[in-house]
Parts: sequence; structure tokens; C-alpha cells
Amino acid sequence: MTIDELISLPIKKPDRDTLMLSKKKWDALAKPIDGLGDFEDIVCRIAAIQERVCPDIAKKALIIMCADNGVVNEGVSQTGKKATYEVAQLMGDGKSSVGVMTGKYPLDVFVYDIGIDSEDTPEGVTAKKIRRGTADFIREPAMSVEDCLDAICAGMDAVKECWDNGYGIIATGEMGIGNTTTSTAFLCAVTGALPEAVTGRGAGLGNEGLRRKIDVIKQGIALHIGQKKPSSPGEVFEALRCLGGLDIAALAGVFIGGAIYKIPIVSDGLICAAAALAAEKILPGCREYMIASHSGKEKGTAVILKELSLKPVINADMALGEGTGAVLLFPMLDMVMELYNSGTVFKDTSIKQYERDLK
Amino acid sequence: MTIDELISLPIKKPDRDTLMLSKKKWDALAKPIDGLGDFEDIVCRIAAIQERVCPDIAKKALIIMCADNGVVNEGVSQTGKKATYEVAQLMGDGKSSVGVMTGKYPLDVFVYDIGIDSEDTPEGVTAKKIRRGTADFIREPAMSVEDCLDAICAGMDAVKECWDNGYGIIATGEMGIGNTTTSTAFLCAVTGALPEAVTGRGAGLGNEGLRRKIDVIKQGIALHIGQKKPSSPGEVFEALRCLGGLDIAALAGVFIGGAIYKIPIVSDGLICAAAALAAEKILPGCREYMIASHSGKEKGTAVILKELSLKPVINADMALGEGTGAVLLFPMLDMVMELYNSGTVFKDTSIKQYERDLK
Repeated sequence: MTIDELISLPIKKPDRDTLMLSKKKWDALAKPIDGLGDFEDIVCRIAAIQERVCPDIAKKALIIMCADNGVVNEGVSQTGKKATYEVAQLMGDGKSSVGVMTGKYPLDVFVYDIGIDSEDTPEGVTAKKIRRGTADFIREPAMSVEDCLDAICAGMDAVKECWDNGYGIIATGEMGIGNTTTSTAFLCAVTGALPEAVTGRGAGLGNEGLRRKIDVIKQGIALHIGQKKPSSPGEVFEALRCLGGLDIAALAGVFIGGAIYKIPIVSDGLICAAAALAAEKILPGCREYMIASHSGKEKGTAVILKELSLKPVINADMALGEGTGAVLLFPMLDMVMELYNSGTVFKDTSIKQYERDLK
Repeated sequence: MTIDELISLPIKKPDRDTLMLSKKKWDALAKPIDGLGDFEDIVCRIAAIQERVCPDIAKKALIIMCADNGVVNEGVSQTGKKATYEVAQLMGDGKSSVGVMTGKYPLDVFVYDIGIDSEDTPEGVTAKKIRRGTADFIREPAMSVEDCLDAICAGMDAVKECWDNGYGIIATGEMGIGNTTTSTAFLCAVTGALPEAVTGRGAGLGNEGLRRKIDVIKQGIALHIGQKKPSSPGEVFEALRCLGGLDIAALAGVFIGGAIYKIPIVSDGLICAAAALAAEKILPGCREYMIASHSGKEKGTAVILKELSLKPVINADMALGEGTGAVLLFPMLDMVMELYNSGTVFKDTSIKQYERDLK
């Protein structure tokens, strides 16, 4: 795939009629109007994406992209690169945080090595290594054009595989030491947010490290972007390849894949949000296929979700990654879908139906 | 029970040592420090309440209090009193919104008729009717002292029964047409919030109805409270009995019961939050046993949760009641507890443990 082919991919709109019918179905249930609030909207949007009033999200997947980042050399993280491989290894065993959390929950987890800085790929992890980590973005572009495109394609392919296998909804997750740095650099470049305002501590950086991280992000933006905010799809792609990570690029591919295969994609924290931003800015319309889960400790997440007009339903100051916030949405959606599909309707009761928009 | 006996009930503090040990257990897990954010805090607090580092919340209950409100005569709701009985009837059948939502989830729902304005109590609902709804608070106190105390006792008894039967956590819920009016009146009286600022549309009130509702709330406060904000436990009890509902009083009893029997009580929306506020102001220290679930469409909920220093993890603009927000917390807690109890610890990996509070 070339850049031109990428930015020319056709993104359709979710089905508006289905959305309206879905809202009508909600209103017929014996409960106050809009009673389940944002959850009603999420279901309506999923219905519109799947183009059926009763969407099927029983089969759920979590796609995790793992990659290393050259910028870790600059001391922007508390722990070293090795941890990316080590946690990916736990993921392959189902023993990482998200694996244990969802051990008793019906969810299929697909872990990809999209660029871990290691010779091999851990067992249980799918080998899609494009290169052994990115280059250090304060010295050169993080990725070549080809590598960035390949990572995006790998993400789209991962969604296609889920689509082939009947998954109705996909959560996103990642693992990659240094990836709050790459995500923050990318989001600052694209949204104009100030690094001082949005850079967070990642997995527990001290004050000194935080100052260094902000400085590194500024250097990267100065080197690759300059003063002009990237706005065209091509410019955003360039920002992604210069500042981003292979994980972010691959996850952008997952969001793009969602729009192409009409599967709702659930965003997790900062890194997934940065990928969602990349997808939307490269291919406008992708956001219609995105569902926000949570807004965590990293301030950049809220900045991006606002830019994408996505509202998270969980606000719990989380900062773990791996898709841990995204999967928390799933069992709530199960309860919500149960009501949507099997709730008592006003007409089967003697209760007077509530009316919308009274004077 | 007399008022003096009520306000003299001994409320112990949750165990601080267990809380610290619980946090230490979180930090030993192979994940970023505070990675699960507020969910880590919730687990630590439950551990401290149950006085064991590995608390048991496998067995879960939802206590729903149903009652009618005299103030409905003033046209403060879109629907009439009859709906309270009708929805309680659905609840008894497991066919109300929360019943359907949790139909496939391991939760025991206990529905109480604490004061529905009907001769009988619907099947499947426990009869604890204190009176057929409260009096209209713009004309006279909503309840007698005795009725209000009886309602509080009924709530405490409901928790004792759960305690006897080994429940580890209890969610709260309610049904009662007009109870956003009573809750808002009570919260404005106790916190000093302005009715214009916090009064919401309940289950879909129009602009005209909203104006009437605000006016009715002001009249109630002027009649029973005047200018002086109730501050002593006795004064808050008086505000509760004059402006509150039997449901709010009974739920206040549930929160008090949580503090006495050492069971975490999960708050739902505005009405449950008002009850939580009553419990804390009547018996300071109860808040330590409370867990917030969501902050919904009614603005008053956020005002109360802030006053109680409780932070909801769900923000989804919900406005349904019945405990629908509270129960959404449960399956998330299941995932979180799974990680807490069975997560991989750093010392079983080669990963370097993250450090707290780096320079």
C-alpha cells in the first residue's frame, strides 16, 4: 500500500436509519427516557455500525500491539526496553494484567509483536515484527514510510481476521516502554496542545524524568514538524511516522480496519487514543466507528477524545495500558445489551410511556 | 429506636493497617504503580472495611427501596404515583430494568415496599410498608419522627439480613415517583446548594415542570428549614423527615447498616447519594463504608459525592434509578479483583519492580 492508496480508502458512514430505529427501541422500554445515558448512545452507534437494530457483540476480541521505541534511549521512562519483551511474554501466557483480569471473562486476546526490540517473538504472541523498535525520534524519523505503512496494514489485517471470525466488537491495547512519550509527541504535533500541559508520568516517572520527557517531546516536534500544525492526511501520516511508534501505527490500522469492516473499535488509554486520532486525521470518518472506554491519568487522552468528540464512560485515573480500560467496558455493555434486547416494553405494562421533549 | 439512640450508634473506622497492606499487595503486581487508578483504591477500601487484605465480594446483593411521595401532588413529575407500584411489580417479577440487566449476572436483588401508596405489596417485593407514601412537604412534614426512624431501621435490618447471609458488598437502588424532588430538596437544605442550580428533570420533565419543581423545592425548604443550614445530626434528621422520602430514609439506614456490619455499600444515583449524605451527616464516619458508582444526569449527585469525598468511576449521564448505575460497577470489580487476587507478581518475573515517588 502507498500513502496515496491509504488516504484514498473509502470510509462509509454508519447507517443513520438504524441509529434512529435503535433509539426508538430504547424509548419503547419501560424506563425513563435516555435512562441509560451514554450507554444508550453507544448501543445506537454499534447498531448503526453493524447496520442492524439488534447488533451482535457477543463475540469480543482484544487486539494488543507491542513494540519498542528508540526514544527510550533518552531516559523518558522509569524502566528499560527489556520490559516490553517481558510483559509481552506474560501476555502470550495470559498472565499479564489484562490476561488475568479477563481470565474468567469470554474474550479472545490477540497479541502482536509489531516491533519488539528482540530477536524472537515470545510464545503465544503473533510475529509481525516490522523492525526491532523505532529509531530515536530526536535524531531521525522514528520509522520509514514503508515501515509505517506496513504497521498500519498489519493493524487492518488484524481486524480483517477478526471480521472473518465473526467478532462483533474489538478492544484495543498496547505494550511498549516509551509509548506515552511517542503518543504525547504525536498528539501535541497534531492538536497543538503544549507538551508542558499534557505530558504525564507514564508508568511512574519522577519530576526529573518528567522534565526530560517534556524536553525530548519538544525536540522531536521541533525537528520533524516545526511550527506548522499538520492538517492534511499526508502531513498527519508524516507526523505519525516521524514521532509515533509501530504500536501506534498498527493501532491506527486497527481503527481504520474497524471503519472498513464495520466493527466498533474500543479505545483504551493515551496510546490507543493517539492511534485513533491518527486514523481519523488520515481517514476522516473513522471516528464514527470508535467507542471511548476511559479517560485515565495521562491528560493527553482527554484532549484527544475531545478532539474526536468521543465521551468515555469510565473515569478512574487508570494508567496501565494493555487494554485494561477498554475491556472494563465489555461486561457493562453485556448488562446494557441484555436490557436493550430483553427489556420490558411499555406496551406490555400498564405504565404510561414517557414522552420526549415536553414543554 | 429514638433519635438519641440513632445518633449515638458507634461507627468504627475501617482498618487502616489492612488498607496499607492492600496497597502494598497492589504494588507487588507486575504493572505500573497505581495502574488501575481508582479501582485500586476501591479494593483497598473494601479490604479495610472487611478487615482482610483479600476481601470477599463474591456474594453480591442489591437492596431496592420503593416508596411514594406526597409532593407528587404538586406536579413535579411527568408520570403519576401509580408508576411506583407498577415498576415495583415488575421488580418483583425480575422484569424491571435492573432485573433484566442483571438477569445473567450473579446478583441477588431484594426489593422492599417501604411506603408505596397502595393497599397491598406486589408479589416478590418484601412488605415493610411504613405508610402509604409521605405527606406533601409543601404543606406539612413528609414523615413523623417515628415513621422516619422506622424507615431507617428497616434499612439497617435489610443490611443485617445480608450480613447474616454472607453478602460481601451491597448495591443500593430505589423506585419512587417524585424522589428526585425530595432528594434535591434535602440536598439543597443540607449542602446549601441552590435549587435553581441543581434541580434536574428527573424522568423527563419539561421546562414548565422543571420551573414548578424548583419552586416546590424552595417552598419546602422555606417552610421546614428556613435560612439556617442544618448541621447537627439532629437537625439533619429533621431535614430528612420533613423533606425526604421513606425510600431515602430507608436507604440512609442501609448506609448506616453498612458502617455497623462492615459491608461496603455502593451508591447509585441522586436518591441513593442523598441517602448517603443523610447517613454521613447523622452518623459521621459512615462515608468510609460507601463506594460511589456513577455520576449521572442529575447535577445534585456530583454535589453530594463531592461533599462526601467520594469519586464515581462511571460518568455516563444515566438517569434510570433502580440501582442500574451501582450494579454496572460489579462486573468491573470482578475483573479488578481477579487481577488483585491472581495477578502475576514482579518477583515471579524478571521485570524490574516500579518504584513509588521517584525524584
